[in-house]
Amino acid sequence: MSIRKILAGIFLYLYPGIICAQKLEVKSPNQKIILAVENKSEGLFYEVSFGNKVVIKSSKLGFVLKDLAAFDKNFELISSERKSTNEIWEPVWGEQKVIRDHHEELTLRLKQKNQEERMLNVIFRVFDDGVAFRYQFPQQPNLKYFIVEEELSEFSMTGDHKTFWIPADYDANEFRYNTTLLSEIDALKAKAATSEMFALAGSDKTGVQTPLMLKSKDGLYINIHEAALLDYSALQLHVNQQNFKLQARLIPDAFNNKAYLHAPCVTPWRTIIISDKATDILASKMILNLNEPSKIADPSWIKPMKFVGVWWEYQTGKSTWSYAKSADDKDGKGNLIPSGKHGANNQNVKKYIDFAAANGIGGVLVEGWNVGWEDWFGNWKEDVFDFVTPYPDFNVKELTDYAKTRGVSLIMHHETSGSATNYERQLDTAYTFMNRFGYPAVKTGYVGKIIPRGEYHDGQWMVKHYERVLQKAAKHKITIDSHESVRPTGVHRTYPNWMAIEAGRGNEYNAFSIGNLPEHETILPFTRLMGGPMDYTPGIFKLKGFAENDPQRQVHTTLAKQLALYVTIYSPLQMVADEVDNYALYPDAFNFIKDVAVDWDDTKIVEAEPGDYVTIARKAKGTENWFIGAITDEHARIAQIPLNFMDKGKDYIATIYRDADNADWKNNPEAYKIERFKVDTKTIFKLKLAQGGGAAISIVPLEKGKDNQIKKYK
Amino acid sequence: MSIRKILAGIFLYLYPGIICAQKLEVKSPNQKIILAVENKSEGLFYEVSFGNKVVIKSSKLGFVLKDLAAFDKNFELISSERKSTNEIWEPVWGEQKVIRDHHEELTLRLKQKNQEERMLNVIFRVFDDGVAFRYQFPQQPNLKYFIVEEELSEFSMTGDHKTFWIPADYDANEFRYNTTLLSEIDALKAKAATSEMFALAGSDKTGVQTPLMLKSKDGLYINIHEAALLDYSALQLHVNQQNFKLQARLIPDAFNNKAYLHAPCVTPWRTIIISDKATDILASKMILNLNEPSKIADPSWIKPMKFVGVWWEYQTGKSTWSYAKSADDKDGKGNLIPSGKHGANNQNVKKYIDFAAANGIGGVLVEGWNVGWEDWFGNWKEDVFDFVTPYPDFNVKELTDYAKTRGVSLIMHHETSGSATNYERQLDTAYTFMNRFGYPAVKTGYVGKIIPRGEYHDGQWMVKHYERVLQKAAKHKITIDSHESVRPTGVHRTYPNWMAIEAGRGNEYNAFSIGNLPEHETILPFTRLMGGPMDYTPGIFKLKGFAENDPQRQVHTTLAKQLALYVTIYSPLQMVADEVDNYALYPDAFNFIKDVAVDWDDTKIVEAEPGDYVTIARKAKGTENWFIGAITDEHARIAQIPLNFMDKGKDYIATIYRDADNADWKNNPEAYKIERFKVDTKTIFKLKLAQGGGAAISIVPLEKGKDNQIKKYK
Repeated sequence: MSIRKILAGIFLYLYPGIICAQKLEVKSPNQKIILAVENKSEGLFYEVSFGNKVVIKSSKLGFVLKDLAAFDKNFELISSERKSTNEIWEPVWGEQKVIRDHHEELTLRLKQKNQEERMLNVIFRVFDDGVAFRYQFPQQPNLKYFIVEEELSEFSMTGDHKTFWIPADYDANEFRYNTTLLSEIDALKAKAATSEMFALAGSDKTGVQTPLMLKSKDGLYINIHEAALLDYSALQLHVNQQNFKLQARLIPDAFNNKAYLHAPCVTPWRTIIISDKATDILASKMILNLNEPSKIADPSWIKPMKFVGVWWEYQTGKSTWSYAKSADDKDGKGNLIPSGKHGANNQNVKKYIDFAAANGIGGVLVEGWNVGWEDWFGNWKEDVFDFVTPYPDFNVKELTDYAKTRGVSLIMHHETSGSATNYERQLDTAYTFMNRFGYPAVKTGYVGKIIPRGEYHDGQWMVKHYERVLQKAAKHKITIDSHESVRPTGVHRTYPNWMAIEAGRGNEYNAFSIGNLPEHETILPFTRLMGGPMDYTPGIFKLKGFAENDPQRQVHTTLAKQLALYVTIYSPLQMVADEVDNYALYPDAFNFIKDVAVDWDDTKIVEAEPGDYVTIARKAKGTENWFIGAITDEHARIAQIPLNFMDKGKDYIATIYRDADNADWKNNPEAYKIERFKVDTKTIFKLKLAQGGGAAISIVPLEKGKDNQIKKYK
Repeated sequence: MSIRKILAGIFLYLYPGIICAQKLEVKSPNQKIILAVENKSEGLFYEVSFGNKVVIKSSKLGFVLKDLAAFDKNFELISSERKSTNEIWEPVWGEQKVIRDHHEELTLRLKQKNQEERMLNVIFRVFDDGVAFRYQFPQQPNLKYFIVEEELSEFSMTGDHKTFWIPADYDANEFRYNTTLLSEIDALKAKAATSEMFALAGSDKTGVQTPLMLKSKDGLYINIHEAALLDYSALQLHVNQQNFKLQARLIPDAFNNKAYLHAPCVTPWRTIIISDKATDILASKMILNLNEPSKIADPSWIKPMKFVGVWWEYQTGKSTWSYAKSADDKDGKGNLIPSGKHGANNQNVKKYIDFAAANGIGGVLVEGWNVGWEDWFGNWKEDVFDFVTPYPDFNVKELTDYAKTRGVSLIMHHETSGSATNYERQLDTAYTFMNRFGYPAVKTGYVGKIIPRGEYHDGQWMVKHYERVLQKAAKHKITIDSHESVRPTGVHRTYPNWMAIEAGRGNEYNAFSIGNLPEHETILPFTRLMGGPMDYTPGIFKLKGFAENDPQRQVHTTLAKQLALYVTIYSPLQMVADEVDNYALYPDAFNFIKDVAVDWDDTKIVEAEPGDYVTIARKAKGTENWFIGAITDEHARIAQIPLNFMDKGKDYIATIYRDADNADWKNNPEAYKIERFKVDTKTIFKLKLAQGGGAAISIVPLEKGKDNQIKKYK
């Protein structure tokens, strides 16, 4: 492990005590990425190069602090420190068994040249796959409690890059992705087109969310996001369409304050992942590496799993969360009159439990089990659900017992309606209730405007709320799958009970709205998934004709692509999302879902181009089995998949689930073909993916004496 | 019980279906107070007379609802209902054993004459001591969830009345009282003079708080306040200095919204207490009558009591809440270094317990017992205290056991620093902790700006918070003494575990600030106390020279007045506020505090004039003992007290604690004289009260064969 100290700065004293210009440089371990930092009288600036290409032009750092003097210039560099790290660690669950953290660190200790002498440290880390920096406010006499009015971090692009973006919003990440040049971004127009969404706030014509994916004209892939978002508000970017400078914008609170801080403290890391290969972007573990190790000492109770759910039938309109037609639909005794459409009834739930038990699926999510769904949404109402009172047709004891004797767990559902205060008041009670009946996991929901009123889904208060929920849940040995929460930033390394997050546009939009574009799932890995797992809810088999009153609605993929998503969209809690009856339509295709793993020893990004295609191979935890998913956008293509990552000299059997030759997402989505071949490390698959299509492959070692009839793939 | 139906309105149909002007009248049971209500095309108006004097001129009612059409005019009167009530009820604790609720009620059912046909009911009640009204939003198709942008209730005064007021504020009620004409009110100036206060918001030149006390030039006393403030924001009044109209102003939230409502629902009552005798104002039980009966089915655990406290020594600066000098004052192991001035240490607390036990005082309040006081205030910090972790020198188990074996209870202290979210998260844990160690009561505190940020102490969200705290506390059989909370509105009838409230300028200001004016305690009963008991913390014996570094500081009363406050300021939790050592200075005077009751079978308001003097006699619960308190302002006076309220034909022994002849609050406050006399129902005391002075009297039945030597009072 070498420590590189490259000090290229000029120390120029105009007059004693004032340092005028200093430039420090850090190179990545492989020397390819170069960071330069310069402290000028106008402020602190950094730039980043990849080989001989500039990636980030000179970009400013600093803050506006409320009611205090400018905190973005006039710094004296007190000292700088360098540190090299090259170590490995094992995640509790993840895409690979072992993760290497190899980087060079530079810490600048700055002091403002004025009476208050306020101090600010900036910490840079340079990896082979990118650069990150964070601010640190050390303990000091003249800066103790303070309010961030704005963070001034800039990311100055070198040109009018192609950009994969969703509009900035304080409350929502569930937008369709847009692909335009930086100069073409119009977030207001994009938001205006989202009538299917709610709780929108903070519109801004050139405001975009992170993770933001860019591609330069000369083929560099650049991903900007943040890591370790804790006790701070989420980062958004404001695009200057003249000079292509991206400017940090933080989510405000009711007073337009961005963060309440108490020194000593740090901000989240700002991350810039860079490569000339798109596959490297997806392979990057930089964001995870920037997060702190697990705070859960014994994580043995945290178990990845697949789950089915009484849920998709609500999305399609077949049944309802609510028990009665409306809150006013009551009989003479004041009891709700059942509508007959309530999905979370004992009989229906038992059907899902039976299905899970029969197919080795660990969990059954049941939404709509607790009273309140007749009047839960859209009125900024504080006291909605109590998280312990079931509807009369849902017997908690009977159903949890029924599931347990069949080796299945029920998964809890806590919809907060955005009323975080109400949820926090009831956390102890709600989690004690879960423990009592043996629920291991809870899907939380934050639909609607936040209470406390004036706070937003992605603001500092809510970011702390999500952390409080994780901490409380960990005490109760409960794992969390949060929906409508802030998007992930690798915090699941620190809290591995945060197993899945929605915070993006999931498969559900295909059920109830204009849906997702066929390219959607090829952009997600480069954007939303950069921060962590997504509960995308793949596995829909009935792709058309599910909405009785709206024949236009359909899922915008083929069936084979739905299978492939189990590999391309990583999540340790992976839903088997369709109504269980629909799996009987294609039992042979369902075998892939039964077989596919949710926890992995290794991951290979085989091919990828944002907006076009993604092919990923993963090795199931503790086995020699590989699973491959290949997906494409609206264009058909040939996925080329060399199996050179597998063990040499071994024979395997591959089962290929691919689009039928006449399949396409629009007219013939459910046509697929299943083939089995003998394969080895020299095999190269060439698979035709239909328009909006995909392929899923499971590969298991050949058992001697079996499968001898199967022919080799050519 | 007679039902009066006086319908004086003219039913004038201009054209079919539209009622143009209607006037309805209601008289009080004694016919003296007359309410008239008129529905005109410009809106709904009411007026109030007392005998032949108009008290409230024609005043408008109605609302501005957010994003909805005006809700203050164009009403059609659908129907009206009348009801008479004459009944008695017994409070769990109080100033009298039995309370009579005798009133006439009129309900108007109104509908707006437009397409939405929104409905509004207004309920009036007319008592012998005043008028009250509330709005009711019935269940209806076109008004379900809605936001009150402003309540338009007016109270139109007939002239430029003398007014006893404090400035309007969203966060604080702890102002000195001002006595001016309505036209002279300058709330901004009054606020500017309050450097001793913090967390101020919502300034407005002519904005004042309720209870507001007014006196007309022709001798009418008028008190305006509200009753049953639940799930709504507190009422303030904006004074029009041209026409003397008082206009309702509600406390806003971050969005300037005043209340989030869900029909069916009601607002608090708006109360107008009226009399030509000041004593009637203090005797009024109208506000209590307007509140709902107790929600606590078995209130047997709710016990009035006196308590001492490790507290006044913090106010004077002798010792501190905090354990170390600052949060940074830590040793090598990270432990706080004790400053040596921490008041809540085992030894000191035991001294207070011993004192309480020796003097029949039920409770010992200990503030500063839990970690966090080094850095608790002023930084809008969310996570301050945890309510279960004591400082190292405070042994919870040892001290609660020590107290218990001596028949004393420790009183818990929960300072929230205004962080209501933090408190709500920990309520279960905190109250379970109290139950475990046998704390029966908790003093809560809300010093500083509220979290959720954007909410205020007196806004709807916090009003609901205080109710949530009461509900949770009741489940744990815990009583509440809330400081810096919203001022009371008789809600202690509904939640009798809300035993005391500060929400006003207490005796403590005499310790640490410019203090309270000598007239202060003669105004409090007419203002702050109209809504409910106050934890004023009387009983200071060392009235000067308590602040080592500031000899100017002194309590602005005589010692005899401090005794009298135990009667004139009603509270079922009554503090014996001085450092216990100071009571040894005047043990004979302390006998009054030992003897005085805190719960009463009867109360007589003997003499009163706001700003000048108050004399009250009370009969101790379940006994034949009477206690009398008489206080004056900065002027000396003769209190004239006929004992005609006592049982005829019986002899009593009175012990009089009065100002010494040479006493006055400024130069000789601790000079008092104690005298004993035989008295009966024909006795009339004439007691000289010094400047800023008072007198306290305890009267017990003569025991035959004893006290024969004592001479009769003449």
